[in-house]
Amino acid sequence: MTTLPAQKIMEGKYVLLYLSRRKTYLVKVEKGTTFHTHKGFVKFDDMIGKEYGCRVPSNLGIEFTALEPLLRDYIFKSMRKTQITYPKDTALIVMFSGIGPGSRVVEAGTGTGALTTALAHYVKPEGRIYSYDVREEFLRTAEKNLKRAGLTDFVELKNKDVTIGIDESNMDAVILDLATPWLVVPHAPSALKSSGTLVSFSPTIDQVVKTVEALKENSFVDIETIECLMRRMQTERGKTRPQTLMTGHTGYITSARKAAKSKA
Amino acid sequence: MTTLPAQKIMEGKYVLLYLSRRKTYLVKVEKGTTFHTHKGFVKFDDMIGKEYGCRVPSNLGIEFTALEPLLRDYIFKSMRKTQITYPKDTALIVMFSGIGPGSRVVEAGTGTGALTTALAHYVKPEGRIYSYDVREEFLRTAEKNLKRAGLTDFVELKNKDVTIGIDESNMDAVILDLATPWLVVPHAPSALKSSGTLVSFSPTIDQVVKTVEALKENSFVDIETIECLMRRMQTERGKTRPQTLMTGHTGYITSARKAAKSKA
Amino acid sequence: MTTLPAQKIMEGKYVLLYLSRRKTYLVKVEKGTTFHTHKGFVKFDDMIGKEYGCRVPSNLGIEFTALEPLLRDYIFKSMRKTQITYPKDTALIVMFSGIGPGSRVVEAGTGTGALTTALAHYVKPEGRIYSYDVREEFLRTAEKNLKRAGLTDFVELKNKDVTIGIDESNMDAVILDLATPWLVVPHAPSALKSSGTLVSFSPTIDQVVKTVEALKENSFVDIETIECLMRRMQTERGKTRPQTLMTGHTGYITSARKAAKSKA
Amino acid sequence: MTTLPAQKIMEGKYVLLYLSRRKTYLVKVEKGTTFHTHKGFVKFDDMIGKEYGCRVPSNLGIEFTALEPLLRDYIFKSMRKTQITYPKDTALIVMFSGIGPGSRVVEAGTGTGALTTALAHYVKPEGRIYSYDVREEFLRTAEKNLKRAGLTDFVELKNKDVTIGIDESNMDAVILDLATPWLVVPHAPSALKSSGTLVSFSPTIDQVVKTVEALKENSFVDIETIECLMRRMQTERGKTRPQTLMTGHTGYITSARKAAKSKA
Repeated sequence: MTTLPAQKIMEGKYVLLYLSRRKTYLVKVEKGTTFHTHKGFVKFDDMIGKEYGCRVPSNLGIEFTALEPLLRDYIFKSMRKTQITYPKDTALIVMFSGIGPGSRVVEAGTGTGALTTALAHYVKPEGRIYSYDVREEFLRTAEKNLKRAGLTDFVELKNKDVTIGIDESNMDAVILDLATPWLVVPHAPSALKSSGTLVSFSPTIDQVVKTVEALKENSFVDIETIECLMRRMQTERGKTRPQTLMTGHTGYITSARKAAKSKA
Repeated sequence: MTTLPAQKIMEGKYVLLYLSRRKTYLVKVEKGTTFHTHKGFVKFDDMIGKEYGCRVPSNLGIEFTALEPLLRDYIFKSMRKTQITYPKDTALIVMFSGIGPGSRVVEAGTGTGALTTALAHYVKPEGRIYSYDVREEFLRTAEKNLKRAGLTDFVELKNKDVTIGIDESNMDAVILDLATPWLVVPHAPSALKSSGTLVSFSPTIDQVVKTVEALKENSFVDIETIECLMRRMQTERGKTRPQTLMTGHTGYITSARKAAKSKA
Repeated sequence: MTTLPAQKIMEGKYVLLYLSRRKTYLVKVEKGTTFHTHKGFVKFDDMIGKEYGCRVPSNLGIEFTALEPLLRDYIFKSMRKTQITYPKDTALIVMFSGIGPGSRVVEAGTGTGALTTALAHYVKPEGRIYSYDVREEFLRTAEKNLKRAGLTDFVELKNKDVTIGIDESNMDAVILDLATPWLVVPHAPSALKSSGTLVSFSPTIDQVVKTVEALKENSFVDIETIECLMRRMQTERGKTRPQTLMTGHTGYITSARKAAKSKA
Repeated sequence: MTTLPAQKIMEGKYVLLYLSRRKTYLVKVEKGTTFHTHKGFVKFDDMIGKEYGCRVPSNLGIEFTALEPLLRDYIFKSMRKTQITYPKDTALIVMFSGIGPGSRVVEAGTGTGALTTALAHYVKPEGRIYSYDVREEFLRTAEKNLKRAGLTDFVELKNKDVTIGIDESNMDAVILDLATPWLVVPHAPSALKSSGTLVSFSPTIDQVVKTVEALKENSFVDIETIECLMRRMQTERGKTRPQTLMTGHTGYITSARKAAKSKA
């Protein structure tokens, strides 16, 4: 991510074609071709060689903006074959895990790779993500999504059942986004470094209760569960108000720290 | 953050002495000294050379856990001379800004350096944070907080008025946490690379309205404002419920992308 | 509402045909006719003379329950020609207004009569609602909705502009659900009894700010603005969780009490 | 609640001495005595014979307003010997129960009588509340609170265990605010009229799950559980924002309708 020369849009790279907050398209730039929308088609040749952020008219005269895709664009535009992780949850999972550049992380399950993409983004270039999923077709989707985001080098996708065991050790964090996190918790202490973190994301309360119980049984400390409600504002002088539509629930985030067995 | 050899607690480093979620202490390890709490005192000599995550009894027999401090511990334990940024807001600001390892970021104002600490954590070791504040005493506090977190090398603290202008150019992001963000917005396009992001955090609606208007006037696109409500869960089989106490509001987060002037 | 003899379903009365929480129909019972749904048709003759709460199969064998409509069914099923007031907001408006059986209330604007229906329900049989609207077609809709709920005797619908003045005096409460509440506030003190309440419902923040300013200028005290977020739970052993869909915003509720002019 | 002659403050009645939203005092007017606050003392003789809403200075020159107490003042100022029900929850319980003037309601447990007060307020003068509690000392507190609000005539307090059975029949609603609502649900159908409502308020998720299961087993339909988050706004031109402090959780409200046994 050297930033000094102004970044040009190039063939083979991705752009986020932006029409409005609700209408954005994550597309690959291909010479000589066009991209079709309900507001007319856009020619890629109109943007190649220009700077990201340039304005591009469709054949119907509607103006699009060709933005450089950000992490959250890649996350939100993951091919959805399963429940996606929302950017707000991804952000909190990353924060509570304490990871950063150079961190080594076990993730399970991979799913479509939305969360994997975020984890890889934050630990690159020295860190690594070891991502487990028993479902091969998900791993294939995740690989495509990671490739699109340019992050395959930092991830090892593993077609293995993480409830049986974790191969890695001395990890900075174990991050769980699967149906039965409490079955993975007993394997986490041997995978984690001393004082390492475990973060689990679950939609139901019953999953949370079982996971917290497993964490207590396995000597974890600083166990905490939170939920996060995000609401958009409609901002316009004289008409400002929260938006009517809102996602009321995605999931609970549980975090904990590995500790030595209590002597008490 | 090399992780292979198990991490030992060493003199001069920090530990997070954990008693309960509400009672944690971020302290510097000093040989031959003790740390006093309302649950008795703890001897640092009892932990030096042990692994992070070890259990340490106070002289009253109360067991503490000596955890390795994480980013959010440093953020939350910033010396509070001003309103702190909450970890949830920090996480969302980082996510919406799109930054990661190697990013170059202008931040204003520095305040106690809580958000600066987070930004530096995520862009290290190649990225840089240029953090502005007109208040010298805040910069001194921020410097101490950054030093404690081991992140001074990645931050340039600047005692300058960012509403007059921004020295840097070709930045990946401009991040604002100050009283009058709309006065900084006109300087942001020249500081940002094409398609770069601006993220602003403000407690009041009036600040949001003025900032959004300034962003529209300066050709930004993908302008969005959100707020995030975080609630803790009290998890215990048969008694699980959301906690009674909750922070109802910290601030609104506005994000936007720099774009070329519209020809429409 | 004498309740002693078990209540039978009779011709000309309304029933709430219940299939699921999302699929309910508020219909008038008419001898010899049928009611058509996507799950087949139901014969009214199958329910006439039976008790409310009876089960009625459609011709496709799908079972409906014929419930006695409650206040909130009438409110929620108001013919929607304008933004409806949600039951949660209605409940809070009623509570904050302090009204009850016998209260005398000015309401503006009438709209479809959803809030009017609730107010009349709670003040009957001795109280009265004086409901203003400048739009005649809304008053006609409101009249139909009130008639359906059997509450016309307790309401006087007035086709007048409440921003010009209020005819009534010594009212227990003035309740505002219109675009410019601040234009009505100056007329409220002469309409209210000493210590009477004013409650206003508005979707935007700017409306709230203007209304609160008008209340302060007109010597009101105990001025308070709240918003209420309601979320449904999906309750099933082992799968309990908040629902994904949620209404993020309906409006703000401002309440205040009439007081003598301050001598301070 | 005859409202025509302006209401005067009289000896033996209650006033709400209002200083600010946070500082209000519900006190009985006694001739020749004074009421002491941290802002000086107020003489009752200064208000006797004046209209509610009058301004009364303390001996330190601080101005109080003598408001007529409303339902929610009585609810909120209940002598707190147990967890109180919040006005927002009371409002929603009343709305979901469908009750109004003339309704006949079984309530359990009575507690301090805060919810009882609200129920009595809305069903008077023809309706009745039959309120059960096994704890005699609570019934005594509730009686005092009801007397203060002038509502004793509309309530029958019963020192009985509602989990053993309900004496009444043909009730419009059964309203539960006790630790084990699921033990009362099996008795509710015989207490309720056809199509009558049951509403239960519980702080924990486990209580909700058990209650919903009991409702399903007892042929109730239209079973729904919600929670309500209420947030105050701080309204001032140029500084408007939600308040920092917020109650994150009080309890879940479950409502259901009695129906005949399904033949399906």
